[in-house]
Amino acid sequence: METVSTNQSFGGVQGVYRHASSATGTDMMFSVFVPPHEEGATLPVVWYLSGLTCTHANVTEKGEYRRLCSELGLIFVAPDTSPRGEGVADDPDGAYDFGLGAGFYVDATQEPYSRHYRMWSYVTQELPDIVADHFPVDRDRQSIMGHSMGGHGALTIGLAYPDRFKAISAFAPIVAPSQVPWGQKALDGYLGDDRAAWRKHDAVAMIEDGARCGALLVDQGSADNFLNDQLKPHLLAAACEAVGIDLTLHLQPGYDHSYYFISTFMADHLRWHAERL
Amino acid sequence: METVSTNQSFGGVQGVYRHASSATGTDMMFSVFVPPHEEGATLPVVWYLSGLTCTHANVTEKGEYRRLCSELGLIFVAPDTSPRGEGVADDPDGAYDFGLGAGFYVDATQEPYSRHYRMWSYVTQELPDIVADHFPVDRDRQSIMGHSMGGHGALTIGLAYPDRFKAISAFAPIVAPSQVPWGQKALDGYLGDDRAAWRKHDAVAMIEDGARCGALLVDQGSADNFLNDQLKPHLLAAACEAVGIDLTLHLQPGYDHSYYFISTFMADHLRWHAERL
Repeated sequence: METVSTNQSFGGVQGVYRHASSATGTDMMFSVFVPPHEEGATLPVVWYLSGLTCTHANVTEKGEYRRLCSELGLIFVAPDTSPRGEGVADDPDGAYDFGLGAGFYVDATQEPYSRHYRMWSYVTQELPDIVADHFPVDRDRQSIMGHSMGGHGALTIGLAYPDRFKAISAFAPIVAPSQVPWGQKALDGYLGDDRAAWRKHDAVAMIEDGARCGALLVDQGSADNFLNDQLKPHLLAAACEAVGIDLTLHLQPGYDHSYYFISTFMADHLRWHAERL
Repeated sequence: METVSTNQSFGGVQGVYRHASSATGTDMMFSVFVPPHEEGATLPVVWYLSGLTCTHANVTEKGEYRRLCSELGLIFVAPDTSPRGEGVADDPDGAYDFGLGAGFYVDATQEPYSRHYRMWSYVTQELPDIVADHFPVDRDRQSIMGHSMGGHGALTIGLAYPDRFKAISAFAPIVAPSQVPWGQKALDGYLGDDRAAWRKHDAVAMIEDGARCGALLVDQGSADNFLNDQLKPHLLAAACEAVGIDLTLHLQPGYDHSYYFISTFMADHLRWHAERL
């Protein structure tokens, strides 16, 4: 693991790192914020998964999480959203919603994407080991959150590993990718037309199929351009209601899909996570 | 004035605007955050001047000021750092520290810069009128802050208009441009070799020459790469000490010159401003 940069901030250290990933077969970058802590202590860790077009940098620069992470003693890890580099296949038309910057947190089974697009294995297996090897994390106290496509990632990974993640939250998540254009394009492109495979990467379908978790927190802006066509939080609300999952869904009047929205409610989410860690 | 974008954030509105500037003879962009407020109320305004290479966008995205501005009821205005566009002369070698992104908050007298580089007039005269025309500002309650080159701008403008600005603060400011390479290059390039003209744009020289202001707050990172060669806060401390200006200078151990430093101490500065507004 190579250190790209470190900057002191809010009493802790914001780092950016690079490593050769065996999961994706590429170099991958990620950021980690370690708050001030006593020598030898281990700390709970919050995983943050980003949305379409993003890298680790968006939330690192605009997420406004460091103040709260320092106050609450949380490590904050932000992976990239896809493999990148020479030989990594992109969307044939260079679209923003598939390929580079749009890995959708799945292990692709379809050529040519199956060679590098293995973000599920990367985020759930490889990167946790690397982070645990290099930072003072308590692996018994982990939680996960994300934005948009990363909200989809947080929900599906959190539902797949309910014992690992003590809390799951999301900003404007894609809750039912099988039912919306972004998700249909991605799941078809990465997983082919096997709808059974899709259901393992669709939070609403996972709940319908028996996946369970503790309480969920979702914030969604009412002025989000993607609300009605791509996000559809009412589908998650209905799925949770049907099986008794405790979902807190805030529809925030006037907020859009941007980091101006995320940063506004980041502190609420981190406090909610810390109470469960 | 054209609205480029508005985003709801922390209960207020973060806007980015463009207008044709008579001072610079170019289009200029700036950002304004207006916190939530009662209909018809007027609010105090904090001016934030950015550093070398920056536009309005850096602090707008990375400054983490909106939470506090909403809590304290402050309007926050961030101008660009230079004129831009076709026909605007840049550094002959394209250096980062002169020309585009490096207006140094002076009215240039030297060709070819004198045509457009009139950032002193822009920031002190033209933009305040535009902001007052379009936003609910109380012009009797204004303060000014800045970073690096923008710290120089905040100090020199604050010292030039002590009645207008109730508070002046800076992050890692250039305090004595006449005595450091960045400032010498800029003042020579924009103002020529007339050292008397330089003294009106050098905070330490202004204080030596009789300029006065209320209390000053400066935060400076100890791990700032530019500390010893370009910033030299001890020169400001000595000048203030000599004439009895109340300077609070925090040397913050381990912090560098970046927005990771600025965002850490932004809340302290805004609270300090609000107490004086």
